Amino acid sequence: AIIVYRLPWTWKCSKLLMKFIHAGLNTIAMILAIVSMVAVFDNHNANSIPNMYSLHSWIGLTAVIFYALQLILGFAVFLLPFAPISLRATLMPIHVYSGLTIFATVIATALMGITEKLIFSLQNPSYSSSPPEAIFVNCLGLLLVVFGALILWMASRSHWKRPPEENIKVLRPTGGSPEATEAESTMSDGSNADRSDLRINSEAARKQNLKLDEAGQRSTM
Amino acid sequence: AIIVYRLPWTWKCSKLLMKFIHAGLNTIAMILAIVSMVAVFDNHNANSIPNMYSLHSWIGLTAVIFYALQLILGFAVFLLPFAPISLRATLMPIHVYSGLTIFATVIATALMGITEKLIFSLQNPSYSSSPPEAIFVNCLGLLLVVFGALILWMASRSHWKRPPEENIKVLRPTGGSPEATEAESTMSDGSNADRSDLRINSEAARKQNLKLDEAGQRSTM
Repeated sequence: AIIVYRLPWTWKCSKLLMKFIHAGLNTIAMILAIVSMVAVFDNHNANSIPNMYSLHSWIGLTAVIFYALQLILGFAVFLLPFAPISLRATLMPIHVYSGLTIFATVIATALMGITEKLIFSLQNPSYSSSPPEAIFVNCLGLLLVVFGALILWMASRSHWKRPPEENIKVLRPTGGSPEATEAESTMSDGSNADRSDLRINSEAARKQNLKLDEAGQRSTM
Repeated sequence: AIIVYRLPWTWKCSKLLMKFIHAGLNTIAMILAIVSMVAVFDNHNANSIPNMYSLHSWIGLTAVIFYALQLILGFAVFLLPFAPISLRATLMPIHVYSGLTIFATVIATALMGITEKLIFSLQNPSYSSSPPEAIFVNCLGLLLVVFGALILWMASRSHWKRPPEENIKVLRPTGGSPEATEAESTMSDGSNADRSDLRINSEAARKQNLKLDEAGQRSTM
């Protein structure tokens, strides 16, 4: 869901469609998170294991609570049509930062969960004697870190960012309704404006700056 | 060390001094990391505990290796005067991304280490019965996550970024040698250029863009 705006082949899709995909994927993830937490509590209760004693559970529950807040706030501000553009532009960098921080926290929680599970489940042979399962699951944990690093890289590269609507109108012969296009374009100005790459040293970048500047003047209208 | 360029009261210090502080703090951290790893291996050997079996150790060692590479590469490219400006500008976003990713990975490794330690050390009463030590160390773990999130926030806010030299010359009556100033200014253009905030919607931001653009033209000379 995080990198849904970073796929160049989606840049010709409408911003609103992409927002629905972003929100939809995150909603599915939230539902799965809730289902799995219910399963954890049920399993703990069935096996008389205390709930919420470990650091894994504390950090995990914190992450899920922030994730729920992020989802509700994101829905209210960026998907419903009531929030003014200025509020959206102010909240976008916070939304992006929170999303990435929650994502990193969830990866850390998963790694702690894997560590716990390996210690508790591998008794004979023990985790410390490195049986094949331990090696295999350690490799999965390392891959999880690589996956997290890759997603953070894709999300933070400015040239993988969805260009503002002005630039991609050329690519999109079938524009949306005028109202929708206006709202979308100003929104994407806001988000792009805040983290955009100046890339000053090249002539091309200076030209793009001018384009962005025009876009900025449009959005202040 | 990460947020050393994000402290506004240091913006009047020379860029070179700040680089020395950044490199020096990271070198101290690297030495401490090596000392503590030697202590871990010694302790394991003395107590006949196998080395490098856990996911904590795998990810931790990976992070330390990448940290060493980051330190050596950073020293060679950004501190020694041989690297051309274009190479510095290309590597700066990678250096920033690597630094933040290594930082986040180290936090995750610490959390896994805390989880292991709590499980192994708390036997009677066990970790799962939540003795006061468990609650206390869980709180420390949560604070570690808050600390990590705070540092990532400070490092990723563009308005906390050290302004390019052109803008702060006014603040610095005693300039460095002309050669140093030139190198520094172009360097900071490079780094700022790549992650700078366009803040298109305000008039002030447009003015700053013009300034940055001038700086860019200077740096291509």
